[in-house]
Parts: sequence; C-alpha cells; structure tokens
Amino acid sequence: MAAPEIDRLIQVLSRLPGLGPRSARRAALSLIKKKESALLPLIDALQGAADHVRTCSACGNLDGTDPCGICRDERRDAAILCVVADVADLWALERTAAYKGRYHVLGGVLSALDGIGPEQLNLGSLFRRIEAGGVKEVVLALGATVDGQTTAHFLSDRLQPFGVAVSRLAHGVPVGGELDYLDDGTLIQALQARQSI
Amino acid sequence: MAAPEIDRLIQVLSRLPGLGPRSARRAALSLIKKKESALLPLIDALQGAADHVRTCSACGNLDGTDPCGICRDERRDAAILCVVADVADLWALERTAAYKGRYHVLGGVLSALDGIGPEQLNLGSLFRRIEAGGVKEVVLALGATVDGQTTAHFLSDRLQPFGVAVSRLAHGVPVGGELDYLDDGTLIQALQARQSI
Repeated sequence: MAAPEIDRLIQVLSRLPGLGPRSARRAALSLIKKKESALLPLIDALQGAADHVRTCSACGNLDGTDPCGICRDERRDAAILCVVADVADLWALERTAAYKGRYHVLGGVLSALDGIGPEQLNLGSLFRRIEAGGVKEVVLALGATVDGQTTAHFLSDRLQPFGVAVSRLAHGVPVGGELDYLDDGTLIQALQARQSI
Repeated sequence: MAAPEIDRLIQVLSRLPGLGPRSARRAALSLIKKKESALLPLIDALQGAADHVRTCSACGNLDGTDPCGICRDERRDAAILCVVADVADLWALERTAAYKGRYHVLGGVLSALDGIGPEQLNLGSLFRRIEAGGVKEVVLALGATVDGQTTAHFLSDRLQPFGVAVSRLAHGVPVGGELDYLDDGTLIQALQARQSI
C-alpha cells in the first residue's frame, strides 16, 4: 500500500507498549510529516539512549553512568535497601521524593505462568550486597499482586539468615479512595492494619 | 531523576499522538531494555523513512518515489480523482481495495478555528490537474464533520467552472450500526437518501 519504509516504521512502532496498529499508523504519519521537528529529534534521542544508557552493575537501575547516580550519591542512606521489580517502580518511588535510601532492581517478579524463577531475577547481587554488610533494613516495594506478594514472601524467607530487618509497603485505602469502591481484600488489609490516632 | 538521555527520550516520545507522559515512560523503558530487538530497529526504521519517504508532487501522497506508486500505476483510472484531507484517509480507502482511481491529498480541511484557509491546502495543484484535462469525476471523500463538509461545499463551488462531475461519499447507517445508537443527523441523512430495493 505505502512505501516499504513507511510499512516498516508502522510495524516497528506498533510493537511499542501502548501503541496498537491504528495509533502506530497515526504516529508514523505524524513523524514523517514533521521530519525536522519530530522524526530527526526522535532518532537523535534514541541514539543518545542507545549510546549512553547502561544498567547499573550494583543495583540494576538504568542510568548514564555505572554505578548509577543513586548508588554514587553519598547522601543516600546505604543502610536501607528498597527492592523493586522494575526501573519504572524505582522512578515512581523517586517521584515521591520520600525515600532517601538505595535501591535494588530485581528485573521482574517470580511468575509461574510466565516461567520466571529466582534464577531469572537479579538476586545474586542482592544477596552479595547484603552479605558485604552495611545494610540494616530491606524494604520490599513489590506490587500487591499474587506474583508480587509471592516474590515478597520468597525474599523475606531468603533474607532471614542475613539478620537484616525486612519490611514491605503498607497495604490499605489509597489516598483519595472511597470505601464503597474498594475491593474486599484491600478493606480487610486496611482493617487488620488499622492504626491508633 | 534518570539519565538526561532517558528524560529526553521520554519527552520526545510523549509528543507522539496517542502517547501520554505515562505511556511514553513505559515505551522508553521498554526500548532501552530491548536495545537490540527494539531500540536499534526503531532507529533504523526512522532513518529509512527520513531518507526515502517524500511527498508526491502530483497528488500529495507520501511514498518512496515521486510521483508516488498510485500516480505511476497505469492501471489506475485517471478519469476519477478522489480528494482526501490526509494521507491517513487515502490509506483507509486503499485498505478497502474498492477504489481504482487516483487521489489528491489536500493536507487538511478548511477550519476557521485552526486558522486554515484555502491557501494552506494543496488546492493549486488540484485545479491544475483538472485543467490539464482527463479528469471526468471528482469524489470528495472528506469527513462528515463541520470542517469536512465546509471544505466539500467550498470545493464543489470552485470545481463548477471546470465542468467535471463532483460527488461526495454517501452518508447513512454504518455497516453493523444499530439505529438506536445512531445520532439524529445520521438518521435524517439515511432517511432522506433512502434507496429502493
């Protein structure tokens, strides 16, 4: 139908998360029409990311340097280690500006369905970091899903011999949430973990 | 927060139609994580489009050649010219495989709100093509929106002196449409244009 270059661009774009075939067509067309202001800057930004972004060998974060900016930041508390499944979760926690410790990115969660076992996760370096000493608390910041909670249980078991405190994020009513719209599981957790005021 | 290269990629991606800030973050992360299978092929596809895709000087279509494949195709009926607002509309019509004439891409529709007047549209070459002779019918395949219909009226006025037949797409009940869910305007048009069976 169109030039092979356009078809190929649509095909590659449609593999991006969040873009279906229809929005990939729209995006491709918009890029081609705005070559100077959109297409060439995107090539440049992609090339910059390809050339400079690497995985931090200490924590698994993505950054322009290895070790990453957070691991190199001396003001961050090395005694607390926050375990997250993905870099996106690290970004979400960083946006809150409420956490001043270090991170460890697992690269996923245990999942029987997706065939992800402990050996697929970035666990060896986690245990080595804790073994090296200095870590007093590990915060398991994993999703409140079946896989996330399975991973949290697995990790708290495996971390027991190291003698570090292990905590997890609180479950409860999200800020702005109406009780009427919450699922039973969340309400039960919120009731059981009620706090005196 | 993250490396400047990642921030820049997210920012450029979030300007694509269909991607907001959140999905741009997801897309950027997915691209960086799959460098060999996603990021580098996307750079390649974008570079291919930047290098090879051009606007057809005859009809305004985008293709790897000028004139485009449709304008060069001798099997296409040069006596019928289908006027569309955008290349996306041309693609939509081509997907039906029901039209065997040529196209003319306006590059938009008249819009008082967006400040788009006749001089912003690809009209000069349309009139020159019709003046050059050979065109017997012009099909106005413009959206059934206020702007699309304004443009259709404007064009049918301006095309009158050329003595070519001017038609527009039929309005009516879309295939698969339930009468109950249709707006009044569509039902009125469908009633007025009813066909004997």
